[in-house]
Amino acid sequence: MSISRRTMFGLGAAGAAAVGAGAIAARSLLEEPTAAHAASTSDPFPFYGEHQAGIVTPAQDRLHFVAFDVTTSRRDELLELLQEWTAAAARLTQGKEAGAFGAVGGPAEGAPDDTGEALGLPASGLTLTIGFGASLFDDRFGLAAKLPAALAPLPKFPGERLIPEISGGDICVQACAHDPQVAVHAIRNLARIGFGRVSVRWSQLGFGRTSSTSRAQVTPRNLMGFKDGTNNMKLEDAALVREQLWASAADGAAWMAGGSYLVTRKIRMTIETWDRTSLREQEDIFGRDKGEGAPVGKAREFDPVDLAAMKPDAHVRLAHPSQHGDAHLLRRGYNFVDGSDGLGRLDAGLFFIAYQRDPRKQFVPVQMSLARTDPLNEYIKHVSSGLFACPPGVRDAGDFWGRELFA
Amino acid sequence: MSISRRTMFGLGAAGAAAVGAGAIAARSLLEEPTAAHAASTSDPFPFYGEHQAGIVTPAQDRLHFVAFDVTTSRRDELLELLQEWTAAAARLTQGKEAGAFGAVGGPAEGAPDDTGEALGLPASGLTLTIGFGASLFDDRFGLAAKLPAALAPLPKFPGERLIPEISGGDICVQACAHDPQVAVHAIRNLARIGFGRVSVRWSQLGFGRTSSTSRAQVTPRNLMGFKDGTNNMKLEDAALVREQLWASAADGAAWMAGGSYLVTRKIRMTIETWDRTSLREQEDIFGRDKGEGAPVGKAREFDPVDLAAMKPDAHVRLAHPSQHGDAHLLRRGYNFVDGSDGLGRLDAGLFFIAYQRDPRKQFVPVQMSLARTDPLNEYIKHVSSGLFACPPGVRDAGDFWGRELFA
Repeated sequence: MSISRRTMFGLGAAGAAAVGAGAIAARSLLEEPTAAHAASTSDPFPFYGEHQAGIVTPAQDRLHFVAFDVTTSRRDELLELLQEWTAAAARLTQGKEAGAFGAVGGPAEGAPDDTGEALGLPASGLTLTIGFGASLFDDRFGLAAKLPAALAPLPKFPGERLIPEISGGDICVQACAHDPQVAVHAIRNLARIGFGRVSVRWSQLGFGRTSSTSRAQVTPRNLMGFKDGTNNMKLEDAALVREQLWASAADGAAWMAGGSYLVTRKIRMTIETWDRTSLREQEDIFGRDKGEGAPVGKAREFDPVDLAAMKPDAHVRLAHPSQHGDAHLLRRGYNFVDGSDGLGRLDAGLFFIAYQRDPRKQFVPVQMSLARTDPLNEYIKHVSSGLFACPPGVRDAGDFWGRELFA
Repeated sequence: MSISRRTMFGLGAAGAAAVGAGAIAARSLLEEPTAAHAASTSDPFPFYGEHQAGIVTPAQDRLHFVAFDVTTSRRDELLELLQEWTAAAARLTQGKEAGAFGAVGGPAEGAPDDTGEALGLPASGLTLTIGFGASLFDDRFGLAAKLPAALAPLPKFPGERLIPEISGGDICVQACAHDPQVAVHAIRNLARIGFGRVSVRWSQLGFGRTSSTSRAQVTPRNLMGFKDGTNNMKLEDAALVREQLWASAADGAAWMAGGSYLVTRKIRMTIETWDRTSLREQEDIFGRDKGEGAPVGKAREFDPVDLAAMKPDAHVRLAHPSQHGDAHLLRRGYNFVDGSDGLGRLDAGLFFIAYQRDPRKQFVPVQMSLARTDPLNEYIKHVSSGLFACPPGVRDAGDFWGRELFA
């Protein structure tokens, strides 16, 4: 008998209705941004919608991010893979197994079409978000004419030390969930499905989301111990989301209408040095106090920032939208610890993730300013970089990731 | 003002009493093994007790394990560090900051004595468990005469490919918690406190505990998709725990009475190959069915194993206590994914952790049998190894980790 994760948790058609408030709250995120969360961290978010989930979705607590290189040179094989992946993602995000025959439901002589480690686990808020890197638009698949201008290579930023092996990639998938086993299971099954057509270029696990994407969330802390993302663009900022998050056909690439551009940066922190810095210096560098997260001269975290009150090179001031023509980002990064670095230190930092309508007007000017003058640079180093065009949402079961791109 | 994690969650003296059932359940674990868990995954486990917490404690869901090399050659400095670490561990496990002045409570001109990223987070079931490797008993600290016979080097096992840089270590600390940010925060602060006296040799993050250590827990699944640890030694097995888990003075090293020996093995899985194996072969290799976890010929997970019914080289049969003079292990390992391996695959597997009274009679014969004939070896490779003597528990605020060893 096939053990369906759906069956085990009563999340079939009838069960989903019974979830009530939680399911409604989750669904409404795609229809109209609200502050509502899923009722529990076990619930699913809807997969189908105008935009991909995993962008304005209230940031879940765990991440498994993967970048693939496409190894087939056949357009039809790539197209087929995107359809298979979409079908699997539609199932996985709802707490089902990757394929109809599951880890134990298929013929004993065949390899299971799910790897099994998430049997018995609920949907856990899993979202899967796909993006296409500029390298996919070379001459292999006939996509050169579809390359969006906004995928222009990022400039070289002062001080970055990018490692090519963990940068770039033809296709990325961001898996966010409240349970790392569920996020890992999803990426692992997409990799399994892609065997012979894609190979894993790099992957990154993260924990402790370092930004809120909804006003209903508490602002979390990064590994420098500071609240991160207080003034992040949030799903409730309807006008800002419309203007600065979602691409439109008028931007040039019609297939990206309703999509968004994703920048990833793996930022290694030399936390050992940071930890020996005085509290005053730490707070001066950020421009906020460490306990409450209040901007300089203010009492509470969400008090308006008074840029004139802080040092000219305070991080908050350098990154502030007012310094960059009102450019905002929707950040949803994660803390990471990747063991140790062989030099007696933890290999730790922030896996930065930011969505935006056009990196040339948003991430690039902000990061250029930070890279040039932010005193925080003494404690951080950018070691990987990614830039991906994340297409609009999958509308229904007849649609698939990248349909508009290959149309 | 100092923000105390205790204050924020109302877990002060009065608050702790109010937690009621949860606190009592947690406390009773050290007094008499029961099936009771803490009432929530936010609650603390007691730090003081006859045995260290983190061994029979119901396995938490996340791990940060670290091995340190001692860099000072002065015995008094090492002794001082162990006292400082114990004081910090007693605080951290109760959801407090690492030191009295905390991340924001100290003088602005000094470096904070907590790194701050766990401000606002509850205790999350954090346990910190220390162990001493054989290398600590060389001529640096005058401990040679205290080396327990049970710390004899593990033999070379067929097929292992150990990487020295991520094996061994003078001192290990296992941090388990329900929130990875809390586990990481604890290890990071111990490393910070140890600056100039120890350096991080290697560290490992894990998720999705792969064994239960209490009958009240659901058996989790490893990354091969199978339930793992069904017949693990559990805290309710009072006689077995007494006979096969805790060392006694009669074993030779009096300072280890009430302690336990820890073996770690990082086991890399070639999951891509495993995922293309038929369900029948997978189940034959394990000797259990994948869905329910029932042994061959039986219907339910906890039905008694019938060794005669399964293949001679089934994993369950090879590892079964009846094949090794009734040798049991208390396993509490974790799944890991460390990014990708540069060859297009996820770097994933099992970080095996097992506690026992004497590895020479428990881990070694079991693993030798598995290493020689287990067909699972086609899909796994041991890449790191650790062996540590974990001393008894810290009795009270006047006691410290390793007091008996240095006495």
